Amino acid sequence: MSSAVRTDSGRSRLRAEVEQELHALFSRHAATAQAYGPDFARLWSLAARHAQGGKLIRPMLLLESYDAVRRADEAAPPPADSCAEPARAAHDRAEALRIAAAVEALHYTFLLHDDVIDGDLIRRGRPNLIGELAEVSTGRARAAALQHWAQAGGLLAGDLLLSSAHQLFARADVPAETRLRLLDLLEHTVVETTAGEFADVGLSDGLIAADLSTVLAMTTRKTATYTFELPLRAAVILAGGSPQLESALSSAGLHLGLAYQLQDDLLSTFGDAGIHGKDPYSDLREGKQTAIICFARMTSAWPSIEAEFGNAHLSVETAQHMRDRLRECGAENFVHGLIDEQLTAFYEVLAGGSEAERIPDEVRTVLLDLAARLEGRQS
Amino acid sequence: MSSAVRTDSGRSRLRAEVEQELHALFSRHAATAQAYGPDFARLWSLAARHAQGGKLIRPMLLLESYDAVRRADEAAPPPADSCAEPARAAHDRAEALRIAAAVEALHYTFLLHDDVIDGDLIRRGRPNLIGELAEVSTGRARAAALQHWAQAGGLLAGDLLLSSAHQLFARADVPAETRLRLLDLLEHTVVETTAGEFADVGLSDGLIAADLSTVLAMTTRKTATYTFELPLRAAVILAGGSPQLESALSSAGLHLGLAYQLQDDLLSTFGDAGIHGKDPYSDLREGKQTAIICFARMTSAWPSIEAEFGNAHLSVETAQHMRDRLRECGAENFVHGLIDEQLTAFYEVLAGGSEAERIPDEVRTVLLDLAARLEGRQS
Repeated sequence: MSSAVRTDSGRSRLRAEVEQELHALFSRHAATAQAYGPDFARLWSLAARHAQGGKLIRPMLLLESYDAVRRADEAAPPPADSCAEPARAAHDRAEALRIAAAVEALHYTFLLHDDVIDGDLIRRGRPNLIGELAEVSTGRARAAALQHWAQAGGLLAGDLLLSSAHQLFARADVPAETRLRLLDLLEHTVVETTAGEFADVGLSDGLIAADLSTVLAMTTRKTATYTFELPLRAAVILAGGSPQLESALSSAGLHLGLAYQLQDDLLSTFGDAGIHGKDPYSDLREGKQTAIICFARMTSAWPSIEAEFGNAHLSVETAQHMRDRLRECGAENFVHGLIDEQLTAFYEVLAGGSEAERIPDEVRTVLLDLAARLEGRQS
Repeated sequence: MSSAVRTDSGRSRLRAEVEQELHALFSRHAATAQAYGPDFARLWSLAARHAQGGKLIRPMLLLESYDAVRRADEAAPPPADSCAEPARAAHDRAEALRIAAAVEALHYTFLLHDDVIDGDLIRRGRPNLIGELAEVSTGRARAAALQHWAQAGGLLAGDLLLSSAHQLFARADVPAETRLRLLDLLEHTVVETTAGEFADVGLSDGLIAADLSTVLAMTTRKTATYTFELPLRAAVILAGGSPQLESALSSAGLHLGLAYQLQDDLLSTFGDAGIHGKDPYSDLREGKQTAIICFARMTSAWPSIEAEFGNAHLSVETAQHMRDRLRECGAENFVHGLIDEQLTAFYEVLAGGSEAERIPDEVRTVLLDLAARLEGRQS
């Protein structure tokens, strides 16, 4: 059974489950929104479409890990009071699916509020929710007013989804102690991600000194925590795994998450935009403080890069020139080295120490599989 | 005992309880924030100060109503299984106090995100949280960058407080059914307030036709729901009151809440800014679509008002001239009439119909007292 989830068809089934759950969630919201007129209904329907358009990495990781912890449990000798009926297992699995949907709603909240903060109207080459709201051509609209209303819509849709994520956690039909552990995890995640986002904006605005440790802490908080730590820990809590397992997966997730984001930074500057689909060189144009830039700043190449770094109207030619300099000065290699360090630490956690900290084979398989997919990714 | 809460000293005691609870809440958050460096700690400390600076109308209404429903219950003949020990009562009261704090956190979230949307740096004549964040003079800051970071801080602090409000509801140590009723109420409140805010922005931006029914629906949703309906219904749910009582107080609260906001509109345009403390004529300067404006638009005075309505650089003289025209054309009287209608409907709900819907005297006293204070207010 362990190999079943690693096949594409296993993953397709998981994806279909998550999609169905998200669809049900947004259908409930859409029904409520109808009562507030066409503009609010449209806001919800756009939020629903955009929130369902992602790669679903986080909810799928949660479910895969949940299933793996449960399988490991079944493989172990049954405890004295074991009477796990199928009905009970199905109920618990349904609760895990709901929390998986909540994690995706939270992810989209963060994306949306990030776009509001940056004033972005585009994501991955297409209008984002705000961009679509600002596009309506009814003839009634002055462009500046419409854009303002669209920004407000983005902020408020984020508030609705943030509330929705909390509601799903709060309503989890699990033992009280489990629900409190889930709520603690959610609180930790929201505070940490918010702190990361606040630091990211301060760094991009040039108001915080961009040393490497600050940038790496920001990166871990802004991305790794909610992308990998949250789904993994939620899976352990929901599946009734031990605090030791939760702690080990938390550590593994943070290492993998930082590697993932560093890889994202590399792709954004050195990758093939035709494949990764992001706005090419947007990090250079926005003056984003990444580990790449932290390294370059310490080299003699920096003065020639700095002049155009953060220029919103950067031409493709100049950007390519900057990219070449970043490569030549060793910044690309340096970040590859950082990624290797994080992956090494990740594999060390997986190898495990004492018996108490051992990660079951079923769970390790999920994580190794995830790492393999991330290492080879180009988008 | 019923008269005790109506005295100033009774209200001072309630206020002290709420202040202490809010202080404890923000102390916990401050301790967590320390781990994320001085900028994030400062964000939380500003949020704590501003969130604790309000009039506390909502949490105090919740507690007063809770106490009243409980007193009414004690006055009624005890049910067969009555064994309400003091320890139990104290536990329940502490839960109500926590929900009261959550309601204030939610209120401040809405204020803060409203300021983010409007780009406001001032509230009641003083820098708001965003204004204070943008003020730091460390010499390191370029003004535009700092303002951008401050806006991001306002948005993110709102996200943290919105999460905090949900966490407090989710953790209420009350029977499962009670917690679900509270979560339903919170969800209803967030959706309705968000819909009201979205409509308010669309109206101010001139993107929604400002007819009276649209403006009144927006006003009820944006303000009345969370200011009066939420605390009253939460009080009934927490105190174990009947669904009939919850429904009656919901209706009474919405009528009173709409009257309250209409009165606010009148104060903002016709009141004494030296007393009410708001930015004088800001509604005229922002082009806010109020019931006053809806009426004026239907009169022959409108063309002379319209020319300067929504002019961000309106002089005090022109504003006073507009105010006089709004008074002459009958808009002030018209809105007084709307307030009277809402108050009449409020008193009708209080008078009650069938025995099942009767509001206990203790609760009615709280509401009549509140209405009396609102009717005479000048700020």
